[in-house]
Amino acid sequence: MSAARKLFAEVLGTALLLAIVIGSGIMGERLAGGNVAVALVVNTLSTVGGLYILIEVFGPISGAHFNPAVSAVMAVKGLLPRKLLPLYVIAQLGGAVLGAWMAHAMFDVSILQLSTKIRSGAGQWFAELVATTGLLLVILRAPAARVAAMVAAYIGSAYFFTASTSFANPAAAFGRMFTESFAGIAASSVPAFVGAQLAGAALAVVISNVFAGAPVAPEVQTEPDA
Amino acid sequence: MSAARKLFAEVLGTALLLAIVIGSGIMGERLAGGNVAVALVVNTLSTVGGLYILIEVFGPISGAHFNPAVSAVMAVKGLLPRKLLPLYVIAQLGGAVLGAWMAHAMFDVSILQLSTKIRSGAGQWFAELVATTGLLLVILRAPAARVAAMVAAYIGSAYFFTASTSFANPAAAFGRMFTESFAGIAASSVPAFVGAQLAGAALAVVISNVFAGAPVAPEVQTEPDA
Amino acid sequence: MSAARKLFAEVLGTALLLAIVIGSGIMGERLAGGNVAVALVVNTLSTVGGLYILIEVFGPISGAHFNPAVSAVMAVKGLLPRKLLPLYVIAQLGGAVLGAWMAHAMFDVSILQLSTKIRSGAGQWFAELVATTGLLLVILRAPAARVAAMVAAYIGSAYFFTASTSFANPAAAFGRMFTESFAGIAASSVPAFVGAQLAGAALAVVISNVFAGAPVAPEVQTEPDA
Amino acid sequence: MSAARKLFAEVLGTALLLAIVIGSGIMGERLAGGNVAVALVVNTLSTVGGLYILIEVFGPISGAHFNPAVSAVMAVKGLLPRKLLPLYVIAQLGGAVLGAWMAHAMFDVSILQLSTKIRSGAGQWFAELVATTGLLLVILRAPAARVAAMVAAYIGSAYFFTASTSFANPAAAFGRMFTESFAGIAASSVPAFVGAQLAGAALAVVISNVFAGAPVAPEVQTEPDA
Repeated sequence: MSAARKLFAEVLGTALLLAIVIGSGIMGERLAGGNVAVALVVNTLSTVGGLYILIEVFGPISGAHFNPAVSAVMAVKGLLPRKLLPLYVIAQLGGAVLGAWMAHAMFDVSILQLSTKIRSGAGQWFAELVATTGLLLVILRAPAARVAAMVAAYIGSAYFFTASTSFANPAAAFGRMFTESFAGIAASSVPAFVGAQLAGAALAVVISNVFAGAPVAPEVQTEPDA
Repeated sequence: MSAARKLFAEVLGTALLLAIVIGSGIMGERLAGGNVAVALVVNTLSTVGGLYILIEVFGPISGAHFNPAVSAVMAVKGLLPRKLLPLYVIAQLGGAVLGAWMAHAMFDVSILQLSTKIRSGAGQWFAELVATTGLLLVILRAPAARVAAMVAAYIGSAYFFTASTSFANPAAAFGRMFTESFAGIAASSVPAFVGAQLAGAALAVVISNVFAGAPVAPEVQTEPDA
Repeated sequence: MSAARKLFAEVLGTALLLAIVIGSGIMGERLAGGNVAVALVVNTLSTVGGLYILIEVFGPISGAHFNPAVSAVMAVKGLLPRKLLPLYVIAQLGGAVLGAWMAHAMFDVSILQLSTKIRSGAGQWFAELVATTGLLLVILRAPAARVAAMVAAYIGSAYFFTASTSFANPAAAFGRMFTESFAGIAASSVPAFVGAQLAGAALAVVISNVFAGAPVAPEVQTEPDA
Repeated sequence: MSAARKLFAEVLGTALLLAIVIGSGIMGERLAGGNVAVALVVNTLSTVGGLYILIEVFGPISGAHFNPAVSAVMAVKGLLPRKLLPLYVIAQLGGAVLGAWMAHAMFDVSILQLSTKIRSGAGQWFAELVATTGLLLVILRAPAARVAAMVAAYIGSAYFFTASTSFANPAAAFGRMFTESFAGIAASSVPAFVGAQLAGAALAVVISNVFAGAPVAPEVQTEPDA
């Protein structure tokens, strides 16, 4: 697989991921008549279905990271050539902004926006750390044929159980700066989110090392777990 | 498999698909008490479950296209004999109208209806292009044993993240002309929708050619993606 | 497998199925504050998850019919010994009533109840015919390892797209006579429902015969459908 | 696998499970504007996705019990060394409290709380017995490669159909004492809940013995069930 194709897959996949996250946020907010829980259900269901197919479609091409924290861990683990890491990150950040713009074009709002939504405080940052630790643990320990379903299920859960609705992705935080909608985040809130995400990714590496050598769930087991 | 059986499968499957889309739209609208987001959740969950089983049931018989844009791409790719293409399209359009009528019969409303719901504008058309590009990319790159789950997950996501609620199917647009309910579309809005859908299908072929030769997700992988 | 164990599985499985259908109906109705669509979402999600695991758990023991229409078709197809059919039906009807009583006991309402909820009219009957035809088509054409997921997905869809919320099961109709809750049906409405269900089952046999010899979806395919 | 790693997995997994259950309960309660059914949908969807990935991730390490009733049954069945049982239970109880505290830290509420929510009465206790019987039946009869999906689907169903919203886990009951939120339970209500859960687990063992020797659902079946 050429590097150009991998990078194109990361741009396209991250753009679609952000279009899904932001587009379904706009849809939920518009239709839910003020019931924010229903808007979040719409946002979450759309993200779960979309993330599942994006990982299935682009996984065999680029690994379907769509997330600088994931790419960084893969580079550390030797699963992504290190020289590709900065290119992956640029592709992801660029794709994320494109995705925000796609969502805006579909919903007939101004393409160029900047969020003013402050997301800050120790609870939010701890939530991002937990969310990203969980995401990386899932990725590092998923059997390959189930990684798409597992990541989608995890993010669906984390949208609801983390106080930050689980960005867990520096590229998502970056792209979501460029929308005033439900899913947005003010630029001033992004650095601490990204810091918490990278700390969470590092913690996941530490935890997964505790389990080094332990088998991951096999595709087909013939004996009960004990 | 005889052509007649394939065409019967396309008629029946498309009829059931439209009965699901329109029937659950009526159910959602009736019960949701004005909360359109809840109505859309009902409509989406029903479509996801129904599409999944229709593709599993009819896939081995006709390919379970239920969609002229899909059949056209399959013909271009040499996966559907070209002489069958017009017959498939006729079966799908006829099935779609039958499905609208089935839904009306179940919900005790007039069988013969025409929608007056205008769905128009650049945002809607761009949304249909995006929705159909995504659908065809999923179909062209899904491993065969997971195509039903992936298409269902994708459409579930796209109902929420595209401004048009993702028709992504000229036969669905055609059938939905014949209902005044939640899921309807005015006849005058259909041509531009179909144009956008076909443009999206063409774009998906272009993009998938970029990835020609890349493996699709295997059923069982033994090495992590890199 | 002894017949007694099969019958015990049918009693237990049908009881749990009805406890799920009626219990989640009571839960949805109590909590949804008058938004019937939300109550139906609760009822549907619970039924989908419950039906999936009941079929996985009891399928290898009794076939996990829990439904006289399914048992009748299996007997016709030679997949259930005919002498077991009346015993299966009795087990299912008895289990259904037990399930209603279990739900009532859990929710602290009178154990013995009779529904007064009239469900009648051509739309309702046509809906039951469609619902049962679809259910049997799914069962007759599902690959064995996916039948649980497919039946659950189908019923989840059909709860929403059929005007009757898809009983599709004479034992369910029988058991639901014995509850005044959301999921109930008046005794006077049951015979026509059962008639429509049996007609739907017969229609499914006719349709599936059209596709006799066609392959069902394989577990793993290596070629795209055409 | 060393015992220490197993115990670490049980602590971590149970902590995450309770963080999910309590965190999504707080999220649902905060956002749903008084519609308790919507709050419960949020709570349930989050638990289903989270439980699925926790069992996939930690199953191959510790068995992913996260539940003293499950560990006790596994010890009885000879699938967990008996000397590990008390250590597993301590790890689960400790993890549960940690998880409550994690949820509180994320949502910026006091870390140390005690629930005052009385959950009592014959209906609640019968519901816990049913919920736990069902859970153990699923675990005892699930094919190993599907146990994560089946347990998650079951608990998703049981949150809605049991009057107690299905704790089905003494460690969950213990951890939920330490939160005043939606998911809490008063300490005075816990002993009867645990008693009902252990009775349900014992009943599941009795029922599963009836089916001893019957095959569980195979990964791939080639013959229809009969």
